[in-house]
Amino acid sequence: MESLPQMAVSFISFPSPRVINAGKSQHNEDQACCEVVVVERSSDVAPRASPEDTEGQGRKDLCFHYWGLFDGHAGSGAAVMASKLLHLHIRNQLRDLVDILQDASSPPICLQSDPRVLPTDRNRAPLAEEDAEFLNDALPRFHLEKAVSCESLVIGAIENAFQQMDEQIERERTTRLVAGGCCALAVVYLLGKFYVANAGDSRAIIIRNGEIIPMSREFTPETERQRLQFLGFLRPELLGNEFTHLEFPRRIQHKELGKKMLYRDQNMNGWAYKRIEEDDLKFPLIYGEGKKARVMATIGVTRGLGDHDLKVYNSNIHIKPFLSCVPEVRVYDLTQYEHCPDDVLVLGTDGLWDVTSDREVADVVMEALMGCEPNDPSRYTLVAHELVVRSRGVLKDRGWRLANDKLASGDDISVFVIPLGGPGNDT
Amino acid sequence: MESLPQMAVSFISFPSPRVINAGKSQHNEDQACCEVVVVERSSDVAPRASPEDTEGQGRKDLCFHYWGLFDGHAGSGAAVMASKLLHLHIRNQLRDLVDILQDASSPPICLQSDPRVLPTDRNRAPLAEEDAEFLNDALPRFHLEKAVSCESLVIGAIENAFQQMDEQIERERTTRLVAGGCCALAVVYLLGKFYVANAGDSRAIIIRNGEIIPMSREFTPETERQRLQFLGFLRPELLGNEFTHLEFPRRIQHKELGKKMLYRDQNMNGWAYKRIEEDDLKFPLIYGEGKKARVMATIGVTRGLGDHDLKVYNSNIHIKPFLSCVPEVRVYDLTQYEHCPDDVLVLGTDGLWDVTSDREVADVVMEALMGCEPNDPSRYTLVAHELVVRSRGVLKDRGWRLANDKLASGDDISVFVIPLGGPGNDT
Repeated sequence: MESLPQMAVSFISFPSPRVINAGKSQHNEDQACCEVVVVERSSDVAPRASPEDTEGQGRKDLCFHYWGLFDGHAGSGAAVMASKLLHLHIRNQLRDLVDILQDASSPPICLQSDPRVLPTDRNRAPLAEEDAEFLNDALPRFHLEKAVSCESLVIGAIENAFQQMDEQIERERTTRLVAGGCCALAVVYLLGKFYVANAGDSRAIIIRNGEIIPMSREFTPETERQRLQFLGFLRPELLGNEFTHLEFPRRIQHKELGKKMLYRDQNMNGWAYKRIEEDDLKFPLIYGEGKKARVMATIGVTRGLGDHDLKVYNSNIHIKPFLSCVPEVRVYDLTQYEHCPDDVLVLGTDGLWDVTSDREVADVVMEALMGCEPNDPSRYTLVAHELVVRSRGVLKDRGWRLANDKLASGDDISVFVIPLGGPGNDT
Repeated sequence: MESLPQMAVSFISFPSPRVINAGKSQHNEDQACCEVVVVERSSDVAPRASPEDTEGQGRKDLCFHYWGLFDGHAGSGAAVMASKLLHLHIRNQLRDLVDILQDASSPPICLQSDPRVLPTDRNRAPLAEEDAEFLNDALPRFHLEKAVSCESLVIGAIENAFQQMDEQIERERTTRLVAGGCCALAVVYLLGKFYVANAGDSRAIIIRNGEIIPMSREFTPETERQRLQFLGFLRPELLGNEFTHLEFPRRIQHKELGKKMLYRDQNMNGWAYKRIEEDDLKFPLIYGEGKKARVMATIGVTRGLGDHDLKVYNSNIHIKPFLSCVPEVRVYDLTQYEHCPDDVLVLGTDGLWDVTSDREVADVVMEALMGCEPNDPSRYTLVAHELVVRSRGVLKDRGWRLANDKLASGDDISVFVIPLGGPGNDT
């Protein structure tokens, strides 16, 4: 398989043992993982080619490079577990696809089954005759048949791996004492393409020739307002008679009943006035702005892993139905562009991005890389370190401060800097 | 108020009385409307300024320019009704906002009520004391208060007007014999900004200095797959035991039970394999590709007005819960750019866009306008006519054909060409 040139450690996390977090937690709730993962064929899928082919000059094993950042909250349990296991779930999801992804032809719509695996339908006559007739997917039998790309199979595999990971956390959270939840940002490099999967408010950008290419978007109460309101509207029982799915620009006072106030519902992007009724005095499902926006006054991110026990304070209302474990996956085809050694993919938890803009990150990266020898394998580690140190700031009388004296991040900060080009990347 | 220079008729629809539609319908199901609408103050909102102010040099009446395109299906009833009434619903929604939109300060979060309008809460003591204390919105009383722009109030007004229009069609469809449904594309020009509201598969683009700026997106079973699947997943009873919310790339045969086939659910953008179960043999909620994609094998658009009686063929399953009447509203601030007389906003029903690309439309517009005198008021009408004639094609032995001999549109075609600049537009 194609390989990336510089797999040197480019991950830096703050707080490290040398420094203490700026007041938020004594322990780092950020976790990370960086692996090269080998994918073995699924045993219940018949190989597409003859056995001779797969052993001889035929298809090679599949493997992928993997980076994961997990920003925990309410404990590091979910982040620790996900950092140890998410890539294995991705591997499992890819096992059906080992041959398919390395085949030049389109993926088959229906797989040949291993004869040992029986259909689940027990009401039918034995399938002997039909089983013998293998589907020939090369010849479409139906007028209407959607073409599905290999790329979309990898996206589907990653999406389902997040779901499997979340279900495992749910199953094992009591026996393995898995506390809290985590945002998850995972990158898979497979067959020449980066798949950047994000569930939460971590972020990824590519810096190519000084240009910034966003590779993720954040999932917060504000960006996902309409999805959450739609769910609250369709399933009002999830709101526990405490919350309204409507949004208001501020809390309503009881004496404002009957007055007209601005609101918006699950269908609206704009705002309009409505006459306040008793029901509108409930707390809004989505409330607050920016970093202070919350779902049910409880949590500021809307996607991630874990949080199965999270409830509204002093109530029996579960938050989880509103949180999604599904990532958005963006694809970057490394083969479509020329890359120089200074082109990188930067992954960071919100501790980085809250105090350092995309442009500032790009400037730091370019400046720091220019100060190193192009062939120095530690140059990306140095850049990651630089990004963390700048965002952490310096402890002054009035707390941690950035170089411009603005408030520095009080949050955990973790950064990956992954090189996209340079010597060795054309193999 | 600011005014647009050239309100000359720039609307052309095909088929006109002179030509017969190319086989689809004898009658044009497209409808259109172009109006200047005056908005009167709502009577139950107290004026923000003193009466002297509003009569003297104070605020002027509010009025807006309006263009609407309504592409009917299963009859022209809904399209006709919407073309006659949607702008009046928009006017009604704007009535609360007449003073607010013309005030330089931020919109008030809570309106002063007219004392004649009583609160709906009947369980409370009389409100005399609290009523006397008018809310002073200039001074935020709460730490947390979201700023809401005038622009977002207009967006909210248009969104709610579409909803009101849809509800009116539902109420009066039997008494007024309103058949079918329609896609709706409406443009409001108010206080220097264009608000382009789209619900369906009509489209709007701005052509500025040869550059194309999309002002809408289409709502079809493919673009709205996840919203529809999410609804089917949360409310399976709406699928009437006939449909599955999962998508498959083709119909599944009964003998494929137990095999692994590609699918995707409401959470997935990618595809994955699943073992086929009995339930998967139901017809997919979303099926088909491109112009042939359908919701419940019935309809190829997912937003619009009407369709309250639409059912799956030979069943009692209603389509409407999956169709949305909510438009997406995009805003274009005319004051932010310099415009020349050849810059236009083009609105068209799908009959135009199915056979003519954005680039082709822009080329026809630029070429046709260059052939006219810049001051000729009929030049935009001529352009609209040219766009319709080209997309309609010419009747040959093998049906209606474009100039390049490709199949021309067999659909109704309607086009507005609205000038953005030129002499008179700086008033």
